[in-house]
Amino acid sequence: MPVNLIAPDPASLLPVAGVRLGIASAGIKKPGRRDITLIELAPGSQVAGVFTQNRFCAAPVTLCKQHLGQLDQSGGLIRALVINTGNANAGTGEEGLNRARRTCAAVAQLFGCATEDVLPFSTGVILEPLPIDKILPALPAAQADLAANHWSEAAHAIMTTDIVAKGASRQAQVGGKTVTVTGIAKGSGMIHPNMATMLGYVATDAAIAPALMQQLVKEVADMSFNCVTVDGDTSTNDSFILIATGQAGNAEISDSASADYAALKTALADVAIELAQAMARDGEGATKFMTINVVGGRDRAECKQIAYAIARSPLVKTAFFASDPNLGRILAAIGYAGVMDLDVNTLKVYLGDVLVAENGGRATSYTEAQGAAVMKEAEITVRVVLNRGSVDATVWTCDFSYDYVKINAEYRT
Amino acid sequence: MPVNLIAPDPASLLPVAGVRLGIASAGIKKPGRRDITLIELAPGSQVAGVFTQNRFCAAPVTLCKQHLGQLDQSGGLIRALVINTGNANAGTGEEGLNRARRTCAAVAQLFGCATEDVLPFSTGVILEPLPIDKILPALPAAQADLAANHWSEAAHAIMTTDIVAKGASRQAQVGGKTVTVTGIAKGSGMIHPNMATMLGYVATDAAIAPALMQQLVKEVADMSFNCVTVDGDTSTNDSFILIATGQAGNAEISDSASADYAALKTALADVAIELAQAMARDGEGATKFMTINVVGGRDRAECKQIAYAIARSPLVKTAFFASDPNLGRILAAIGYAGVMDLDVNTLKVYLGDVLVAENGGRATSYTEAQGAAVMKEAEITVRVVLNRGSVDATVWTCDFSYDYVKINAEYRT
Repeated sequence: MPVNLIAPDPASLLPVAGVRLGIASAGIKKPGRRDITLIELAPGSQVAGVFTQNRFCAAPVTLCKQHLGQLDQSGGLIRALVINTGNANAGTGEEGLNRARRTCAAVAQLFGCATEDVLPFSTGVILEPLPIDKILPALPAAQADLAANHWSEAAHAIMTTDIVAKGASRQAQVGGKTVTVTGIAKGSGMIHPNMATMLGYVATDAAIAPALMQQLVKEVADMSFNCVTVDGDTSTNDSFILIATGQAGNAEISDSASADYAALKTALADVAIELAQAMARDGEGATKFMTINVVGGRDRAECKQIAYAIARSPLVKTAFFASDPNLGRILAAIGYAGVMDLDVNTLKVYLGDVLVAENGGRATSYTEAQGAAVMKEAEITVRVVLNRGSVDATVWTCDFSYDYVKINAEYRT
Repeated sequence: MPVNLIAPDPASLLPVAGVRLGIASAGIKKPGRRDITLIELAPGSQVAGVFTQNRFCAAPVTLCKQHLGQLDQSGGLIRALVINTGNANAGTGEEGLNRARRTCAAVAQLFGCATEDVLPFSTGVILEPLPIDKILPALPAAQADLAANHWSEAAHAIMTTDIVAKGASRQAQVGGKTVTVTGIAKGSGMIHPNMATMLGYVATDAAIAPALMQQLVKEVADMSFNCVTVDGDTSTNDSFILIATGQAGNAEISDSASADYAALKTALADVAIELAQAMARDGEGATKFMTINVVGGRDRAECKQIAYAIARSPLVKTAFFASDPNLGRILAAIGYAGVMDLDVNTLKVYLGDVLVAENGGRATSYTEAQGAAVMKEAEITVRVVLNRGSVDATVWTCDFSYDYVKINAEYRT
């Protein structure tokens, strides 16, 4: 069983002025499962997103990019988001696009807006046709369920193999006003985001200039969802959406060098980091949460390369599952990370606070008992000190257990 | 249990004139375990090798490169190879180099040659000091055991987590003479070679010019060991060694464009491919053998990139373990392989002979029953037709089972 795995208290997820959420059951994969979520945005809300770079990206990802104007600048303001679990609508070709568009059109009719004002999201099995015969009839019930305090219900409704729902809130002072940030996300397999994560939604009532939204969503993604891996598999459906309704009453943030921008970004990043870490904690089969911290590199790319090599290694992950300080596997991963001019004689490796390796080998001070003590903990930090620059990177991941195999061997049964 | 996993009949491993092998027990990890192998080469034998690109390469890899003249052109002719299991002598710093050198010196004294004429190899746990107090006393017994027909014994002695020994022989006509090729290798975890494999040794009695040896060993490695992955972890100790004793009586091959070079290379590659495939079949916890065949690419690099993305994906590998045709995972892996201008609408994916995907989605002719039937087989080929060029690549791998986790969680216990 995973450790420190706690769903957020529903009362801790603060409403965001201008955002309402509604849930319904379409029975896509199982009868009665609440698998449809609608998110309604007040007129004038700003929305930006980052999406998977998987070439087999899902139909809803393509439509999201169209409707946000990322493909042809035709995008307008967004009024609603529609999310289904149980089917990814990926690897579904032209007909998949049609079905995602028909879902948007049905939502648009309910909300009295244009099809292009709706963003669609799907998560679940790839290569199966989207069952719109089940989805479309469930939309009115989701609309009837809309409420500002349904964040926790939505966090539950977007889960697939997640064990717990993921959500977080923060408040910050921006332009003399209190602004609220609330976000929800889902994991928990096929998690190795490349520009974004599986599904993550963070909303704020702050007012911010449309021109800054894309920069902000990218910066927040790079600090959070782009630092997590469960199994190294980049999904076809990764989407991270940032919503700003502008209802907090602050003067619109129009300068990315301003204190207000920084304050809002910190609050958004705090929420997004909490969600991203929750994904690693709740990685499929996870029993341990690992933070891989690479410091003293020449650039962020090489730090992330080494951190991801460690975080992705099945041998490292099974050793952590076994609480076995078989730390040579960490050295091997550092060595094959692809930083070809790396000098292994000048780097240091720490497990927790214990110095494990230096001078190209095991530290003379290191004892197996020290390593074993750290390995028993439920949350473990591996720190690699490269001693060749001043840049850092952090990646969060989990261990690799029998249950990962079980969950993924039996996923469709 | 793995399927089609059969150790070679000892009688099928043909002696190679000029090569003798001897085994002994040093009790490195377990008392009584036959863990030391000596390979004696007749004077005048040519030796070339390719080695891991892991920056944390093991001490014996560094010494091999020195002794083969890859580092400073000082290398001479090789008279003996010494291999131990139970300890990788990797992540052991300067003292690790000293101990590998002392092992070579001890072998050199037994054989009356120079320390530089001996190549050392180690495989086992990383980050532990090499126990030369156990190894050195065992060397005379290994020398006393030397025999031309001990290939099968050596194949067993170099095993670690391998279930079966790996060896193969071929004969070919070269320059009007029959030449023999015999090879042995070991897996079976930390297998994702980058220039070479864990440990592989292929010897022939053919005569070939020293100048062609390095080209030949690289070409053979690229056709065989560089096409296999078990867990995506590139070892610190990967070594593939090609030996040519020159005792077959053929006129020395001196032209890489000659028919003799081609005939010898085919025989060497046949042996090396059989060994590489045996590694995937015997991958840790493997129950299935998978061939990933990517055809019609623009260059070999993109074909291998896509083949490796599929072969490394934990989600693909667990689906094969479950015999579940959850083929969307294959599409996802193709999509995130990193070929950024790939058009997913023009490629086709086959499982065995069954067309699974085309036009960016599931083939209309495909049925779940077709996929399930192929998935029941013990040996499965995934074929991706890119339709954008004329280059192919093949990668061999295995599935991902509970036993992979078990083996690697309990490796040191």
